[in-house]
Amino acid sequence: MTYCVAIKLNDGLLFLSDTRTNAGVDNISRVKKLFTWCEPGDRAVAMMTAGNLGITQAVISALNEDIDYPKQGQPNLMTAETMFNVAELVGDKMRDVQTRYGTALQARGVDAAASILVGGQRKGGAPRLFLIYAEGNFIEATADTPYFQIGEHKYGKPIIDRVVSVETEMPDAVIAALLSMDSTLRSNLSVGMPLDLAVLRTDAMAFEQERRIEADDDQFRAFSELWSQQLKDSFLVMRNMAV
Amino acid sequence: MTYCVAIKLNDGLLFLSDTRTNAGVDNISRVKKLFTWCEPGDRAVAMMTAGNLGITQAVISALNEDIDYPKQGQPNLMTAETMFNVAELVGDKMRDVQTRYGTALQARGVDAAASILVGGQRKGGAPRLFLIYAEGNFIEATADTPYFQIGEHKYGKPIIDRVVSVETEMPDAVIAALLSMDSTLRSNLSVGMPLDLAVLRTDAMAFEQERRIEADDDQFRAFSELWSQQLKDSFLVMRNMAV
Repeated sequence: MTYCVAIKLNDGLLFLSDTRTNAGVDNISRVKKLFTWCEPGDRAVAMMTAGNLGITQAVISALNEDIDYPKQGQPNLMTAETMFNVAELVGDKMRDVQTRYGTALQARGVDAAASILVGGQRKGGAPRLFLIYAEGNFIEATADTPYFQIGEHKYGKPIIDRVVSVETEMPDAVIAALLSMDSTLRSNLSVGMPLDLAVLRTDAMAFEQERRIEADDDQFRAFSELWSQQLKDSFLVMRNMAV
Repeated sequence: MTYCVAIKLNDGLLFLSDTRTNAGVDNISRVKKLFTWCEPGDRAVAMMTAGNLGITQAVISALNEDIDYPKQGQPNLMTAETMFNVAELVGDKMRDVQTRYGTALQARGVDAAASILVGGQRKGGAPRLFLIYAEGNFIEATADTPYFQIGEHKYGKPIIDRVVSVETEMPDAVIAALLSMDSTLRSNLSVGMPLDLAVLRTDAMAFEQERRIEADDDQFRAFSELWSQQLKDSFLVMRNMAV
């Protein structure tokens, strides 16, 4: 599986993904699921993928082909006029790819399900974040629910529900996302290090951070251990409570 | 859905369930999922159910019928010689019920999936805990994994993974189970108050606690609020950490 979380704050957008992919528990490997495109000052776009890897890689490759070999009158990720248009492009590619391979996959009993988070900002527009379904349609993050998760979303949902709102500042949201990932990593083998993180501040039109956190990253390990200790200490406090 | 967690400690067994049932989000009601049987000094048995309510109620009713109208030479929950035999009885009933209704349910596209946690202790035996599958087969909790969850298990798994082991003392395990439930309640509408809790100490052969925690329970609300505050405080500590 996968765990990806994207958060849309007043401060900007953040994207965090793991890198584990597996076809059964006996076939695990590492694959990038966070992709970024940037024309500094004009636009910055990030995407994260979950589900059937053949499907999502085909979508990403097709989007890149359209950038590398632009066709007259056909917008691509780097020329689309708005973030809504970007989401439409991604949804259209998803539908094309599903149409091309879906029937054959289904015939062999392979799950073609896939989903994509795409967000970013274009000059003159606001930062926006979309969740694209396998059918190519999509929904947008709003102030009421400022985050989307794809993949193994349940383990890491409680902490985000508790601490993140649209007013949360970016450094805090990064910490919340990392804690959410940490809980997921501990409880689900199909989600694994390293992690990819991208941070896009509102109106910056360029990524403030694009970072891989490796499994042996000392800072992340210390962070993870401190959280574990904090939870254990909190638990000790709860022991003194009659219930 | 449902969330039930049972933990097997050296100290004894604990069972915690929610009481929400739903056939779609527009048809929510309250139903008991934790059942106990006790002959003080001889045996104490508890069961919790998840999945298709028609299936699990049929299993419980059939088990009770066998107690109320015992048949010569046929053991029931109150006469089975060992906890392993109890698990076999439950598994057999599950298989009978699935055989009787499974095809008709499948024909209408209704999911007949169900699972049952059954645990307890019989005089002369040790406390044991089993997870019964829809097929009637089962697995047993061991010291390596001293707990089982059924239903919406993911939200509440991280906290149990972090703080519960077979050596954990009963009051601490009760707190861990309640925190696990609290996280699930916050993140999933299909799990709801009130809660049912049963505690069975090793060699007591009678339940130390059998308790319903209502939605307006002041103690549980204060407990839930304290945990929320603890998590927020822990989060503030994490903010001071470079990552």
